[in-house]
Amino acid sequence: MHPRNELLTGIALGAVGVAAILNWQCIYDKIENVVRRRKPSSGRVKRAALKNEYDRDPEMRKKMEAYVLDLQSRIVTALEEIEDEGDEASAAFDGVERRPGKKFRRDPWERPNGRGHGLTCVIQDGSVFEKGGVNVSVIYGDLPKAVLERMSAYQTNMELEKVKSMKFCAIGLSMVIHPRNPHAPTFHCNYRYFDTDNGGMWWFGGGSDLTPSYLYEEDAVHFHTVLKNACDKFGEDLYAEFKTTCDLYFRNTHRNNEMRGIGGVFFDDFDRFEASKSFEMAKSLGNSVIESYCPLVRRRKDTPFTENQKRWQQLRRGRYVEFNLLHDRGTKFGIAMPDARTESILMSLPLTARWEYKHSPEVGTEEAKLMDAVLTPKDWVSL
Amino acid sequence: MHPRNELLTGIALGAVGVAAILNWQCIYDKIENVVRRRKPSSGRVKRAALKNEYDRDPEMRKKMEAYVLDLQSRIVTALEEIEDEGDEASAAFDGVERRPGKKFRRDPWERPNGRGHGLTCVIQDGSVFEKGGVNVSVIYGDLPKAVLERMSAYQTNMELEKVKSMKFCAIGLSMVIHPRNPHAPTFHCNYRYFDTDNGGMWWFGGGSDLTPSYLYEEDAVHFHTVLKNACDKFGEDLYAEFKTTCDLYFRNTHRNNEMRGIGGVFFDDFDRFEASKSFEMAKSLGNSVIESYCPLVRRRKDTPFTENQKRWQQLRRGRYVEFNLLHDRGTKFGIAMPDARTESILMSLPLTARWEYKHSPEVGTEEAKLMDAVLTPKDWVSL
Repeated sequence: MHPRNELLTGIALGAVGVAAILNWQCIYDKIENVVRRRKPSSGRVKRAALKNEYDRDPEMRKKMEAYVLDLQSRIVTALEEIEDEGDEASAAFDGVERRPGKKFRRDPWERPNGRGHGLTCVIQDGSVFEKGGVNVSVIYGDLPKAVLERMSAYQTNMELEKVKSMKFCAIGLSMVIHPRNPHAPTFHCNYRYFDTDNGGMWWFGGGSDLTPSYLYEEDAVHFHTVLKNACDKFGEDLYAEFKTTCDLYFRNTHRNNEMRGIGGVFFDDFDRFEASKSFEMAKSLGNSVIESYCPLVRRRKDTPFTENQKRWQQLRRGRYVEFNLLHDRGTKFGIAMPDARTESILMSLPLTARWEYKHSPEVGTEEAKLMDAVLTPKDWVSL
Repeated sequence: MHPRNELLTGIALGAVGVAAILNWQCIYDKIENVVRRRKPSSGRVKRAALKNEYDRDPEMRKKMEAYVLDLQSRIVTALEEIEDEGDEASAAFDGVERRPGKKFRRDPWERPNGRGHGLTCVIQDGSVFEKGGVNVSVIYGDLPKAVLERMSAYQTNMELEKVKSMKFCAIGLSMVIHPRNPHAPTFHCNYRYFDTDNGGMWWFGGGSDLTPSYLYEEDAVHFHTVLKNACDKFGEDLYAEFKTTCDLYFRNTHRNNEMRGIGGVFFDDFDRFEASKSFEMAKSLGNSVIESYCPLVRRRKDTPFTENQKRWQQLRRGRYVEFNLLHDRGTKFGIAMPDARTESILMSLPLTARWEYKHSPEVGTEEAKLMDAVLTPKDWVSL
């Protein structure tokens, strides 16, 4: 599938939180996309092959929930270890003693009437991490009749034909981490699985992306190389495709089209491989989170910084807020849901942010170097 | 006209800046609204009366531009006087000497090809004002064919029938002021005029609203009383109608429907009176800006405050950002325009803002009192 199509039809689920997964318009689009892809319109694709390829795994919900809970636990542990190490530079900057490491606050939650559950892990005002969250959510729901009617236009050859209602399940992990130190980058990822009780609909989605305030090329190379390695086992073109999707999606179109950061990978409504292999691919990327990000925080968290560098970080945080609130489809539609868990969705926002009228870095500065990187996608792994 | 209709059809222009005025969907809606209102569907309204009542004043653009430029100049002067007085409490809080007053930065701008001009006045990091802008914009454009086609469905009895293209002009003043001191409220207003070269379309819109971090009831009473007095000369029910429109519009629907602040007045596609009287009404409200707001800043700007109070202000600024970026139709559609002047639109954002996971004020505190005021609209003038 062409990355551009993925971009247009499927990337609405990039936000943190449950509600994103329940965005109906987005689900309509995805279903049409998946069904259109599967329909043997030319007769060249054999019916049997199709069925075999796309049948969902009845155990996948259990497997995915167990996986993201385990991943969440591993990530939280890894971050708490870094948190315990402290950030000498930030303590010095704030004129305080070395701050003790904080633990993530674990906030389990349930939706009424068995409609789902989750575990939100949040850290705030820590020694290394100014704000961050790692959220797991498991949501059960019913696809509304309108979706089924739209589906029937595509599904005439498939067993969906006579289905009158369709229950679905959406399971995902979302994470955003904003470190204190302006030299340490912000990180976001989201890995999720969607399927229906009948009709054979299922897909995986997700991605990881990095948002530094200061560009360290070796960090960008490390980050993208880890992601590429995680993709390469499943197809040599996947990384390039997912990177392009990511670069196109995370853009502040109202800010001269600048990207939120230096990108990463992004994919959605992914069922190109059979279920078990698609799951392995999602896991490969999920498992790369710690390796892709933690060494970068460790490497930068004690770097001394100036008042101006802190201010620049805060201005970049402002852009992060702009993207998440103005453009991120998951956030926008998520908060429009009747029983949205706003606090889980907006835990992606930094602790603090800043806006100055017409701020623009001077030519030749480190700030200008970052701007160049976010205005022009780069092929980091080839550097 | 029922306030609810005004809300649904016309309030998209509440944001700061030019681009808001150019939101096509919004202009479609307004035009349909205005035309529907004018059409003598029952035959009871005489053609002559209609024409007389709604004919636009060919001098109104000049009058409105002169008016908003003069108003801008008066407002900037009034704010600079306050700025010169300084904010002792903020200086003490920051452990600095009394800051000298800053001047507004005057930033005139032009759109290419005679499509308009404006003057953006901005203050940042001042002694009293942390961030603020007073923006005048004059925009010329062409209504696209789609709008004219939609109009023709309504306009069969009017001289618009054979119009093939329609040039318009939109003139407005927008303003947002965020003081440093958490006891001094944030203020927003917007007053604007729209008309077309032919076809007799014109309307006024605008409003003022107040966003305190701490509620001083006497301030709310003062603010609303000044606005009510400005409205009352033109109809005894106007204030109540405009207040309701304002209360309904400035809501963070994703935050338990809390209002951005304690409201004010808001009206749009207003042509209920003949042009000169509608202009007088808009001017009456525009002229009330200084009286409604400046005494409140003077009264609160030197009030000592604590670290916690500053933090609370920052959290409320976060909600201000959420409203402007997630909900304000003017901002959202404005930034989607091809040649949007993003810096003028987003000058409404505070210098700094803050987000904490699940922050909630304790019962009985001053912070809880503010929350009560933003969760339940109050009839301030009757207190």
